[in-house]
Amino acid sequence: MPHESGKVARKLLVTQYTYIKIEIVYVFMISDPVFNRNMSILIKNTRINQKNQDILINEGKIESIAPNQNENSAELIIDGTKTLALPGLVNTHTHAAMSLLRGYADDMHLQEWLSEKIWPLEAHLTGEDVYVGTKLACLEMIRSGTTAFNDMYFFMDHAAQAVDESGIRAQLAHGIITFGDPEKFAAEQKATKELVSCVKKMKNQRITAAVAPHAPYTVPPEHLKWCAEFSEKEDLGLHIHVSETESEVQSVLEMYGKRPAFLLDECGCLTKRTVIAHGCWLDTDECALIAKRGTSVAYSPCSNMKLATGRALPYAELKAAGATIGLSTDGCSSNNNLDMFEEMKFASLLQKSFWNQDTVLPAHEAFRMATECGAKSMRLRSGILAIGAPADIILASLDHPSMVPLYNDTSNVVYAASGGLVETVLCDGALLMHKHMIPGEAEILEKAKATATELISQVS
Amino acid sequence: MPHESGKVARKLLVTQYTYIKIEIVYVFMISDPVFNRNMSILIKNTRINQKNQDILINEGKIESIAPNQNENSAELIIDGTKTLALPGLVNTHTHAAMSLLRGYADDMHLQEWLSEKIWPLEAHLTGEDVYVGTKLACLEMIRSGTTAFNDMYFFMDHAAQAVDESGIRAQLAHGIITFGDPEKFAAEQKATKELVSCVKKMKNQRITAAVAPHAPYTVPPEHLKWCAEFSEKEDLGLHIHVSETESEVQSVLEMYGKRPAFLLDECGCLTKRTVIAHGCWLDTDECALIAKRGTSVAYSPCSNMKLATGRALPYAELKAAGATIGLSTDGCSSNNNLDMFEEMKFASLLQKSFWNQDTVLPAHEAFRMATECGAKSMRLRSGILAIGAPADIILASLDHPSMVPLYNDTSNVVYAASGGLVETVLCDGALLMHKHMIPGEAEILEKAKATATELISQVS
Repeated sequence: MPHESGKVARKLLVTQYTYIKIEIVYVFMISDPVFNRNMSILIKNTRINQKNQDILINEGKIESIAPNQNENSAELIIDGTKTLALPGLVNTHTHAAMSLLRGYADDMHLQEWLSEKIWPLEAHLTGEDVYVGTKLACLEMIRSGTTAFNDMYFFMDHAAQAVDESGIRAQLAHGIITFGDPEKFAAEQKATKELVSCVKKMKNQRITAAVAPHAPYTVPPEHLKWCAEFSEKEDLGLHIHVSETESEVQSVLEMYGKRPAFLLDECGCLTKRTVIAHGCWLDTDECALIAKRGTSVAYSPCSNMKLATGRALPYAELKAAGATIGLSTDGCSSNNNLDMFEEMKFASLLQKSFWNQDTVLPAHEAFRMATECGAKSMRLRSGILAIGAPADIILASLDHPSMVPLYNDTSNVVYAASGGLVETVLCDGALLMHKHMIPGEAEILEKAKATATELISQVS
Repeated sequence: MPHESGKVARKLLVTQYTYIKIEIVYVFMISDPVFNRNMSILIKNTRINQKNQDILINEGKIESIAPNQNENSAELIIDGTKTLALPGLVNTHTHAAMSLLRGYADDMHLQEWLSEKIWPLEAHLTGEDVYVGTKLACLEMIRSGTTAFNDMYFFMDHAAQAVDESGIRAQLAHGIITFGDPEKFAAEQKATKELVSCVKKMKNQRITAAVAPHAPYTVPPEHLKWCAEFSEKEDLGLHIHVSETESEVQSVLEMYGKRPAFLLDECGCLTKRTVIAHGCWLDTDECALIAKRGTSVAYSPCSNMKLATGRALPYAELKAAGATIGLSTDGCSSNNNLDMFEEMKFASLLQKSFWNQDTVLPAHEAFRMATECGAKSMRLRSGILAIGAPADIILASLDHPSMVPLYNDTSNVVYAASGGLVETVLCDGALLMHKHMIPGEAEILEKAKATATELISQVS
């Protein structure tokens, strides 16, 4: 130890420090796999649309929104003081289990990234890995205020199990890639049907299945047609990547002589149940067609920027045509997180920047995109705080410098907040996070770390 | 209350909930205006460059970085388990007090935004408002891991007071706008000299003064020359907006027949002490000139995107020329927060997107920009974790789903983290935040809210 002569002076200064003992008492759910949507809950004194309100939740739904409600009306009281109540956010396109690949390969050219890094690692993924990765993703989503997501990956029965345990909503689909190979197609049909059957058996109203042909350049028209027919017959969502890059649009044009949206329409894939991911390179006619069909688009600004897709979503054109546009993070290997607050800011700023228009996609539109429009595109009744709506509610702290002052709640939410401000999350009327605490979080994180270590050891 | 018949069932389910009592004991500094840089501190078991290390801090500097150091060597022990130690982030261009204008006016055309909203409100700002706004900004910066910033605004003696009390570092400058008016110029010279004198009197090594001609289109060459001479004579930083928009470049070309960087060079303003804010529209020759002069650039991706400046910083050209490039948030009315973690992600993704290159500005360069390069541009010795460097250190939580797995620390920091993960902050060897707690935070937030309410009442 140098500075021995300064010891006395320093010791005296220690008196400037003291111990502060803080005792916190939380009401919290014991880690329980059956989420309790039957509990009546009253959120007291939270802020909704610039006013202080109480929200009464019963049987998984919002029963009333009004100030000064009777505390006897509920079995559990949550103090919402200094919080802003928002609908749970809806992530309309992701690959949840790719959370396990977060930070594994960045800053590479797209093709090398896929062929040298992502695909070789994915070749080793097991159903258990997908379960663990989806648990990690759900945990991150809950932490950052997302209560529903639209997923496309594989081993989706394992993903369903993870979602069931996590307490949030998801529409799950097995990603179908055939490149026209009949054997591959038969296997993908089987996987899709098995997932549908698995989800039906679960009888969990938070979980639905969908059909997910990967993209028009990886799944030929005859297979796309089966996807359209099967999803219609079973009343399932349809989830597909469309026009993320210019080169895939060129491929489709060369192979089929028409642009992707028109090809999809011919195959019956543009429905009200369909979510198109990306859509960066949609042209004006395609935007109009998509809107006309009632098909939704999932905008993934971070992913599009990080992978340099070369064009931003033609938001103004889609909006003018009347299309439903939801917001999405894409998977963690191309983002690298699932924070929909951050995504709202990227959504607005990318439009302003790319199209060189400082007024395009204002805060309130980015917010609707992440809530109401996303819910609509997944055929959910959540995404709004209204009587009778599902109680998918998040409370974001206002007791943070980035939320002060509060001239405009939505501006602060979109441009200044981050997912870390979310302190309480309810989905389907069940309490998933309270005061930043999630039961079982430590175990999920440890398991994810171990799984990632094991996974990477197989490719290195 | 409806559903009365369900009451019994619901009551039974209450047993699934329980009270968990958590007792937290913090070691913390009593709110004290004199920050204690003389305390020796040992951070135990934190992660640096993929390894677990202890950091010993003495007399405001890093004395050693090694595992398993003796706990008797320090007066205060901080447990760094499950944290990543990083240098405090450096924000090289902001207008701190504009935190009071956060969310006041968004999604507007630049000129209307300035003339109808920002300027009328700023006309009512008092020195006390600037003090309160700067306190709020410092609080937000500390919370999100920033320990030094480069500021340009007015009533800067009040800003200096706020920085002094907040415990972080700043280079403060009075923004000089003259439009060639000699009287205005005299007043701006006076304000600048008074600030320099005020900062000298404070004798606070964390605070320095700078000279800040607003921009080449608002301050004519004869006044720019005075700024260059005065800053050289007093050995002060020089802080100026340059080439944020295409139209201001056109103005300079029309007024003076040369591009802004060449005009500034003729006036002696391109020095090693100079920080150029924005620089979106710099051309190749200007990039080379700036690098040659050792002048730094402050890149503000969020602000540039939000205000649709029409072009992203020519990062690759500046880098190839060897220029020092720091990172910055700009003021809160054009961002709308001061989170440098978020800014790192925007920095990288905007370059990839705008220049359509998926490998440009990789994570490690964004991180250096926000730390080492920023420190260099402000002539600070911070921005690195090394023996002898100032103890400007932040600990970011690894106990969060967005930081799992941890294949690549820097990738996670830049692409997945947010400022909310920062739990402990030291600046100049003094502890400013510990386990997310900052002494006096509640009072600063309440004062900022009241000040904002008062301010807005004067224009509405």
